[in-house]
Order: sequence, then C-alpha cells, then structure tokens
Amino acid sequence: MRSFASDNYAGAHPEVLAAIADANRGHAVAYGADPWTERASRALREHFGSSAEPLLVLNGTGANVICLRCACRPWEAVICAESAHVNVDECGAPESIAGVKLLTVPTRDGKLTPADVRARVTRVGDEHAAQPRLVSISQSTELGTCYTPDEIRLLAGTAHELGLLLHVDGSRLANAAAGLGCELAELTADAGVDLLSLGGTKNGMLIGEAVVFLAAGLADGARHIRKQSLQLASKARFIAAQFCAMYEGDLWRRCAKQANAMAARLAGHLRRLDAVAITQPVQANAVFAVLPRAAADAVRATWPFYDWDPQTGEVRLMCSWDTTSDDVDCFAAALADACAHAESRG
Amino acid sequence: MRSFASDNYAGAHPEVLAAIADANRGHAVAYGADPWTERASRALREHFGSSAEPLLVLNGTGANVICLRCACRPWEAVICAESAHVNVDECGAPESIAGVKLLTVPTRDGKLTPADVRARVTRVGDEHAAQPRLVSISQSTELGTCYTPDEIRLLAGTAHELGLLLHVDGSRLANAAAGLGCELAELTADAGVDLLSLGGTKNGMLIGEAVVFLAAGLADGARHIRKQSLQLASKARFIAAQFCAMYEGDLWRRCAKQANAMAARLAGHLRRLDAVAITQPVQANAVFAVLPRAAADAVRATWPFYDWDPQTGEVRLMCSWDTTSDDVDCFAAALADACAHAESRG
Amino acid sequence: MRSFASDNYAGAHPEVLAAIADANRGHAVAYGADPWTERASRALREHFGSSAEPLLVLNGTGANVICLRCACRPWEAVICAESAHVNVDECGAPESIAGVKLLTVPTRDGKLTPADVRARVTRVGDEHAAQPRLVSISQSTELGTCYTPDEIRLLAGTAHELGLLLHVDGSRLANAAAGLGCELAELTADAGVDLLSLGGTKNGMLIGEAVVFLAAGLADGARHIRKQSLQLASKARFIAAQFCAMYEGDLWRRCAKQANAMAARLAGHLRRLDAVAITQPVQANAVFAVLPRAAADAVRATWPFYDWDPQTGEVRLMCSWDTTSDDVDCFAAALADACAHAESRG
Amino acid sequence: MRSFASDNYAGAHPEVLAAIADANRGHAVAYGADPWTERASRALREHFGSSAEPLLVLNGTGANVICLRCACRPWEAVICAESAHVNVDECGAPESIAGVKLLTVPTRDGKLTPADVRARVTRVGDEHAAQPRLVSISQSTELGTCYTPDEIRLLAGTAHELGLLLHVDGSRLANAAAGLGCELAELTADAGVDLLSLGGTKNGMLIGEAVVFLAAGLADGARHIRKQSLQLASKARFIAAQFCAMYEGDLWRRCAKQANAMAARLAGHLRRLDAVAITQPVQANAVFAVLPRAAADAVRATWPFYDWDPQTGEVRLMCSWDTTSDDVDCFAAALADACAHAESRG
Repeated sequence: MRSFASDNYAGAHPEVLAAIADANRGHAVAYGADPWTERASRALREHFGSSAEPLLVLNGTGANVICLRCACRPWEAVICAESAHVNVDECGAPESIAGVKLLTVPTRDGKLTPADVRARVTRVGDEHAAQPRLVSISQSTELGTCYTPDEIRLLAGTAHELGLLLHVDGSRLANAAAGLGCELAELTADAGVDLLSLGGTKNGMLIGEAVVFLAAGLADGARHIRKQSLQLASKARFIAAQFCAMYEGDLWRRCAKQANAMAARLAGHLRRLDAVAITQPVQANAVFAVLPRAAADAVRATWPFYDWDPQTGEVRLMCSWDTTSDDVDCFAAALADACAHAESRG
Repeated sequence: MRSFASDNYAGAHPEVLAAIADANRGHAVAYGADPWTERASRALREHFGSSAEPLLVLNGTGANVICLRCACRPWEAVICAESAHVNVDECGAPESIAGVKLLTVPTRDGKLTPADVRARVTRVGDEHAAQPRLVSISQSTELGTCYTPDEIRLLAGTAHELGLLLHVDGSRLANAAAGLGCELAELTADAGVDLLSLGGTKNGMLIGEAVVFLAAGLADGARHIRKQSLQLASKARFIAAQFCAMYEGDLWRRCAKQANAMAARLAGHLRRLDAVAITQPVQANAVFAVLPRAAADAVRATWPFYDWDPQTGEVRLMCSWDTTSDDVDCFAAALADACAHAESRG
Repeated sequence: MRSFASDNYAGAHPEVLAAIADANRGHAVAYGADPWTERASRALREHFGSSAEPLLVLNGTGANVICLRCACRPWEAVICAESAHVNVDECGAPESIAGVKLLTVPTRDGKLTPADVRARVTRVGDEHAAQPRLVSISQSTELGTCYTPDEIRLLAGTAHELGLLLHVDGSRLANAAAGLGCELAELTADAGVDLLSLGGTKNGMLIGEAVVFLAAGLADGARHIRKQSLQLASKARFIAAQFCAMYEGDLWRRCAKQANAMAARLAGHLRRLDAVAITQPVQANAVFAVLPRAAADAVRATWPFYDWDPQTGEVRLMCSWDTTSDDVDCFAAALADACAHAESRG
Repeated sequence: MRSFASDNYAGAHPEVLAAIADANRGHAVAYGADPWTERASRALREHFGSSAEPLLVLNGTGANVICLRCACRPWEAVICAESAHVNVDECGAPESIAGVKLLTVPTRDGKLTPADVRARVTRVGDEHAAQPRLVSISQSTELGTCYTPDEIRLLAGTAHELGLLLHVDGSRLANAAAGLGCELAELTADAGVDLLSLGGTKNGMLIGEAVVFLAAGLADGARHIRKQSLQLASKARFIAAQFCAMYEGDLWRRCAKQANAMAARLAGHLRRLDAVAITQPVQANAVFAVLPRAAADAVRATWPFYDWDPQTGEVRLMCSWDTTSDDVDCFAAALADACAHAESRG
C-alpha cells in the first residue's frame, strides 16, 4: 500500500532497522542502563544543549502525559489549541491519567499566540479554578503549520512572565526544523522552551519517542513518572539504538526534508487544479485542501488519506520520509483526472 | 556481556528481527488495523481459544494495568501475592493509574492458594472497604515456581464462586507452559482464567506484550483503555509481526524450553556445591539460591545477577532464550572456584 | 452583613436548625443507617418518584463528581456549557477526581440545546477520542436562566437517542421549580433526566446536598463511590434531618420563592435605571446586569456582589432565601443614588 | 438508643449546637473568608503553635486524603499500620483519589515503631518501586492505644532522618491528649509531627474535621487540593463555629476526658468478669475485649457494639463524650448477667 494518510503508515527507515540489528548482540542491562541509551542521550544533548535531560519513552501520548505529570501539580491546568493532539487524539489521557484540565483555545491555523495565552490566564490563586501552569504547543502543528523561533521566543517569554512553563509537542519537530531551516535547539532550548515531547516514530523510527527536559528541576522524579506511566521499555537498548541512528548523524533531518519536499511538490500540483483549494500554509509535511467530494471519493481507495472536515470536504494529505516523487505525481495525476471527470459529469 | 540477571538482558531472537524486517514494506494502516495484527490475533486465538480477544500492547506493566482497569471499577480491589510484580515492581501504577487497592498475601513460593483468596474476601458489600474483584497470579511466579493446571482451575473456581475474576500475569507464561509440558490454553482458558497479560519481551521479542481477554464482556472498552493508558503503538504492525514470529509457529516454546533447560542445568551444577542452597523449586527459567557472600561478590562482576534478599544472601539467577550451556557451565565453574576460594580463606 | 454576593452567604433557615436540634437526641447508627436518613429518602422519593434512589452527600462539587463517576467509565466524556459550574468552579475535580474529559459548548444564556449536544457527539467508537456519555446541564443555570420541562424533555430525548445520559446539576433546582411553577419531578424524572445533583445549602440548609439516581442501574456501587469520594458523613442524621425539614413539607419551595421574588423585585428596580442594563432573563434568584463602574464601586463595599465580566462591567446579583424587600429596596436606592452621582460627575 | 458502637453514634455537644445557632446571623462570606474561620484558625494556632496552618474540612477521610495529596507526589508511598483507618476503612480513597500506595505493617497494638519504619524503607531511588514519603500513624490508634510524646518524637526523628514526613491521623487526638494528660502540641508540633488530621466529629461536633499543617511548605496549594478533593464547605462559618466552640475553651478536653473516663470505668467492670478478657491496653476511649459469644449476642441488641474479630470473639466497645456512668454500669451489669447465664447453660 502507498498512501497520504499518516506518517505513521510508513515503515521504519532501513538505517533504523540496521541499528536495531546491530544492537542485538549479547546481554545489556535492562531499563536504560545500557551503552545505547547513553549514546542516545549524548546525541540528543548535542542537539538540545548540554543541560538537556532526555528520557526515552514508548509513544507520543506517553511523552505528552509524562510532560504534563512532571510539570503540573494536581490542581494545575494546561493551555493548548483546540486542535492539539493532547486535546483531541489521546482519549482523555491528559485528564484521566495526568489528572489535568485542558484550557483550549480555538485557532485558525493550530497556533497559539501570546494573546491567547494571556486571555486564558484568569482567576490566578482562586481556589475554585484550576490554575494554568503549562502552555502546550505542537510543532509542527496538527494543521501542518510551524512556529518560527521568534514566535516561540515570544510565547516562552509570555509564559514565563505569567509563571507558566512552555511545552512543545514535537512529534513532528524534525519536520518543523527542516521546514524552517533551523537547528533543533533554535526551536526549543534557545527559544525558552521548558520541556519537549520529541517524536521518533513519525520521523522514521519503528517505535520510540523521547521527553527532553530543558529547564532545570523538571526532570525531578521523571524516571518514576515514566515507569509509573507505563512508558519504560525493558529492552531499552532497542529504543535507544534507533535514536542513535536518527541523531548521531543527520538521518532525522534527511527523513524530515524528504517528507517536507514531497508535501511541497504535492501542494505545487494541487495549486494547478482549479477545483482544489489549499487551506493551510504548507510549512512541513502536510497539505490541507478542500477537494471536490466526487474526486476525493474516486482516489481515496487507491491512495488513502484522512478526511479533516466532512462538512467542508477538507482533507489532510500527509507525506512521510518514504513518500516518493512518483507517489506524489501519480496521486496528483489521479486526482486531476478525477476532478476533470467530476467536472465533466457535474 | 553475558549474565543471569534478567531475561530482559537478552536481545531479540533472530526470527523476531527477521519478521520485523519482513514487515517493513510499504505503508500499512496505523494503530492496529493492519494485516500483521490480524495474523497475530488469529495465531493467539489458535492458542487461547476462538473466543479469546487479544490486544497488543507495549510493556508488561501496561498489560497488567489495562487488565486491572478493564476488570475493576474504582472501588474494587485486587488480591495478589506480596511478591507479585504488580505489587513490588510497577512503581505504584496499579494504585496511581488503575486506582485500585492491592490486597496482598505473604507466600513462601509466590503462589496463592484458594484459602489465601478466601481469607482476603471480607466485608463484602461494606461501603467502607474496597471490594475484592480480581485475583491476580503470576505464572511462572516471580520466584520461578509454576501453578499446575489443577491449581489454576481450583483458584478460578474459588474466585468465581466468590464473584471474583482470575487474572494471570503471564510475562513468563511460555516458561510455565514449557516447564509443565502444557498447551497455553490448558493453563488459561481451559482452566477458567478470565484475562491474561501475555509476555513477549522476556520470551525473546524486541518489545511487545499482549492482553488476552478470555471471559466474555471484559474487552468492552478495552481499546479505549489501551489508548488512554498510553499503550497503543502507532506503527502497530511491528509489534504484531513479532507475535506472528512467536506464535504462528512454536518459537515461543523453543525459546522458553531453552531458558528452562538452562535453569535446570544450572540448578544441577549448584546442587553439587555444598556451600550453595537452592531455595525454591526450579520449575521455569529461574534459580533462587543462597550463595556465600564472598563467592557471590567474586562472580558478580563477570556474571551479573540480582540480589533477592540481602539479609540472607539469596540471589536470583535468571536464564533466557539465549542462555547457552557454555554460559551455565562457565558461570557454575566460576562460582565453584569462588566458593572453594572463600572456604579456604574462611 | 447583608449582600447580593451568593446564596451561600446566607445562613441556615431556622426550621433547618430546629430540625438539627431535634435530631440531637441519644445515639443513632452512623453513616446513614438512621431513621432520619430513611425519612429523608422517603420524602425525596415523594418528590422524584418511587424509583428514585437518593444518596445524601456533603457539597455540590461532591454531588457532581459522584454523578460523573457513577455515569462515566474512564474513557468517557461529559458535554456541558462552558459556563457550567463543573467546568469553571470545581478546581478541575471532574478531570482530576472523576477522570473525565469535559466537552464544553459556548452559550449565550448558559443553556445547552439538542443541537449543541448533537454537534459534540463525534468520532463515536474512535479509540483516539474520549467518548461522550453524559450531558450535564445546570438548572437553574449559572446565568440565572431556567430550562422548561419541554426543553429538558427534548434534551433527554436527544441524549438517549445518542446513547447518552442526562444529568442535572440542580444546586438551584428549587429556584427553577419555583420560578417555573413546576413540581420537581416535572423537571427531572418525568422529563427523562437520568441523575441529579440536588442542592440543599443554597436553598437554606446548613450543609448538605443529595445525589438522586432516577434511571435504573446508575446507583450500582454509588455507596462505595460516595465513601471513596470523601462524601459520606459519619453523623449522617444531621444531614438527613435538614432534608426532612426541607422536603417533608414545602420549605424548599418557600425558600426558593422568596429568593426568586426578591430577584424579580430587584430586576424591577434596575429596569427603572437608565444607566443599568439587565443582561439575562431573570427566571430564578439571580439578576445579571451591566452597572456603571463608578456606581458599582460605590455600592460594593456596603452590599457585596460578584463581578461577572470585568471587561464589560457585568455583575451578578444573587438573592437568597433570607433576602428581604428591605434589602432589595435599600440596595436599589443606593445604586440609583450612585448612578445619579456618577452621571452628574461624568 | 444508647450504644458502645462508635463515637460517631453520639450526637453533637449542646455547646456545639449553640455555637452554630449563634453563627446563624446575617450574611457571611462563603468558603472560609468569614470571621468564624479566622477565630477557629486562631484558636487552633494557640494549641498547635503559631506557625501551624489549619484548614477546615468535612470528614476524616477527606482530612487524610488531603494530607496524602499535599505530602506525596504521584510515585510516593505511605507507611502505615495494617489496622490504620486509611488502609481498612476508606474504601480505597488513598489509592484511588490520592493515587498513593500504602506500605502496611502488621502490628499487635496498632502502633508503628521506628524499626517498622526502617524496615519498610527499601529500594530508595529505584524507579520500579513506589518511594516511601510519609509515615502515617493514628493517635489514638484504631485499637484504643496511644503513642507517648517520646514515642512520637522517636518516630518523627526516624522519619526525618530517612527523608520522610510524619502524619498523624488524629480523629481521636483529643482522647489521646486527655489520656496522656498532654497538651495537643506536645503530641504533634513539639514532637516533630509534620501534618495532622484533627478530628472534630467523634470529639463532639456535628460535622467537621481539620487538617493542620505543621511543617513549613506543606500547605502550598492545600486550598486548591481541598476544593478539588470535594472538602470545601460553602457555608464554612458553620464548620468553623464548631471548632470555636471546641477549641476556644476546653470543650475538646472535657468531651475527651468523659469518653476516656467511661472507657476506664467500663474496663474496670470487665476486669471483674472471669469470662471476659481485655485484649488491648485501655488508654483512650475504647475497650477491646473477648466476650463469650452467647453473652455478646445477648446484650448486643440492647447495647450495640462492633465485632472486631469474629474468629476470636473480640469486640470493640467505644465510649463517647455523651456516654454516662449509668450507660456503663447498666451495660456491664447486663453483660455480667449474660455471662453468668451463658456459663450456667454451658
């Protein structure tokens, strides 16, 4: 199958598989006291700064929930976009497992502004109201848009001024960095981000994500929180080896660049179709567009993708590290045909 | 490194890695709607019965917590041995994440009896007391012992008579089946077990476990519980492919038999050492023994193992699918030397 | 002090205190197995129907959280108005203690419509999304408005059609019934409400609220949930005796009618002030109005009230069972003076 | 009814009711910003020290759970006696609501020793094990025994040395103080106790308990925890007025002394009965004794009491502030008769 459904539909990069196979020799201490975990931590510190404290975990919801649990006390709340993964795609784990309240903000493009944050910080100290403690943004966002380093710096400044922390849900941080031509630290540690969920799987790994603590003190107790939150791998070397493959060199960027380039190529094709309207800036590896319904239905079976808004016909077309020019061109051609056909019948 | 520390120190079986590599082709629907997950479910149903409902998850604590959350309402409690993994090795996840109370029973060999269960079922209906709902046993136990099919049948009968369910923490179920010469169903579905945590990682996988619902109705909502409990893999085919490797053939049993055989061989060596006392029946892949302290210290650096009771000098020696006769013989020889040396100095 | 701040600023009705004093004789079984609790249950069943199952509790947040815990499984969610007490005034207890996600709807008047409910029921069965299970409405609402029996019947019908339950946060149900000239059952059991938080304290009691289960099966385990949720009084007779005082006769209605009448009288006064704009229909015991800031500040010290929207100058003026015509007339006169003064200085 | 069942079977002391009636005048700010709460806080600070921070709450389970939530982070655990109220009588609230694990210790008399605490503090820092953080003792214990100030000082020293805090579940602290002839501070602040659940209801109040924070920093966020934990009264003055009645004078001690004296008198009677064996030291307001079954059954209907151990025939006879000499003498006479009768038939 080939698809534009999700970067989770893709497999693992061959270099990742090779690293796993290479790590499969002899015994290694379980639960993270192994040489691969040490190497992965070192590699991540090179990207995120020497005081960064990485913690390898199992999946994205796990990374996010650990961040919420480490940052928030039971009566504290999280400000996020209505479209945020933590709000809409984690089956209530933030509330049920981390016990926090989400204070959501409607946005047009999935991005929070300093004004959004200020407007949500009310009733400070009031014992009847959950107290805002964390601002959580997604980078790139669930709508395929990116925050610039300046935008993040402003958000971090606002958060800190209000006594809040800034969290980045970076399940696609690599795509943002590749799209913006930035180093990872420019988008995180250097911009004032306090803690980070760092994606691995969507970027080309088999399984594995990381929490990266950037501000001092936040990692206190994090290992217990990870274990208790069901996110500690026993044969941890196999998670770590994948991070080594991604971050000791530039595989993370190569994978992200390919995905982004394919999204740009796809957007180029779509812009030439009168019947199709692109609805969000294409800044990472996703293209959001309104397709004619008949056309969408015609190509969907061969090239699966997600409906985003069934009301308007908006769809999400997601590229991944393994999307090829051929995939894009074939899909675009099929869609163009379907549009023409739909029109001629219309 | 070679060790007798934990079956988690071992790597993954080559057939498991091959299955992963083989699954790494093209796109596949994420989150479990892929052909490998379907194959794995079919394979598991062949072992556990056609009405078994398997759910693949990420780690053992995750499997156990999902079982507790599916079986217990908020005011219900779990009867288990004091030595149970859920009680001592999950960082309070049963209490903090599943919200249940554990009613623990001291045991000599890690095994619960029907009488233990009866004694813990008190104050039924009393609103001041958490209400027992689930009996959780480990098979093989944390002490390397096994329940026979008859023992499980009796426990299940007692549990059901009292209105309780029976859960098996089977992170080493394969070792128990291999040790007892049983089919998996004889130890579970056929013996009245209601739900099961089925180990994968310790048995030779890279990462992955399963929950297997055996009694009707228990799987209701289980997919939501899995997602919310941070246990759903996005590229789920890679977990599933490993289960295919293990359970479509007899790899699960081959791995377990090797581990068990090495434990038996090791026990044979130790029985010949006067200074060493084996403390538990060797029925699966672990040997518990009291070693002379100086001897233990002498071999520990080369051959890591776990101290079990620092007071008595009892240690746990765990064999895994990749433990070789050579490992066992070398370790036993080193230990014999160390014992002789210690004695001569004593 | 006299005030229009909250019906919680008022004391207890003398008949309530007399009932407590009367119950203070000899010993009584603790935790609710006493004659007063039986009498209170009987009295509540006369109001809510013979199959109603009342459970006396300690406070309003407690009543609401018990309802959520009894109605929702861990992955289920609650649809409510953004302005709902459960959303804004319970310090995150629904999320942190009940573990549920709130799906909030912006409203103009605090009231949900069937269309609001339908719009929030999406992604049914999708394991990534918390699943709507309960619609929670406040009666009267936090904005002083009431649902008619027909509106509730429609909401209940919509909820049930969608497989949801309907909960009423009735901390001011008496005011709604008095305002609408209804019996309590017309607004609840007869209209299809499934479970209810019934206010006592705001209505004139010292302390105490009730959960009333109306639909079959919901009270299962409720006693354990109450105890575990920290809502079981030991000397329960003293909570029950207050409910006897309120519900064996018509004290609940007398108290509510007085509060409502005073709100109506106050609204009459305010309508005669050009500088004041009433912002919500006055249907129970609250008046919402925009006051000139200077005037508001001038009267606030003598007659405390709550600011509702600091941006617009909207305030909430709440009457209680003990508010007198004299209170209302004096406050209105003071406000009229302050408005005139402010204008003359303007 | 008269009984020896529980100090919760007693009513409220007349001075408590008078204080409530007296507080029932005009309006008062809700949720604790009222003059009675201020007075109660001042009175409690006179007993517990000027740096004590009292927080009034609704019931004993609520006080305990707030203490656990304020003292423990999610992965931390509580060391307590197996017989502790938090372990056996709170329907799993410590686990389900506070999310903590209880590490229980079997005791003969309900009292923990420094050695018990040391033995339970293992695996410090191990991410797989919940980390002990709080030692919780009951004073007087559930078995009617008391810790001396010296014993508490030793426990506090041990706890602090190990990095733990010491909590006292003082639902019957007044009885302990009366029994030991101590001031309240001698048993708490002066002995190194860090935080305290202070009983009100069993001591003669209608409803109400307090948390008293003694060590610096622990009260941080406590108001939010109280509200979120469903323990904040709206008409808080009525809880506070009861504490004023108890603690502005010596009512707390008068009530406790009467209860204790009656227990001593009862023990005196029982010691004269050959068929009865007192099983615990009588140091507060409870008498534990093994009664002949037939005799117990004969008196039970007229004079209710609790069975403690159905196996041995041990019962708990609890005196309260309103137990009279007449109650004790009549009960003892009835029991003596029943014993004689039983014997003559035996």
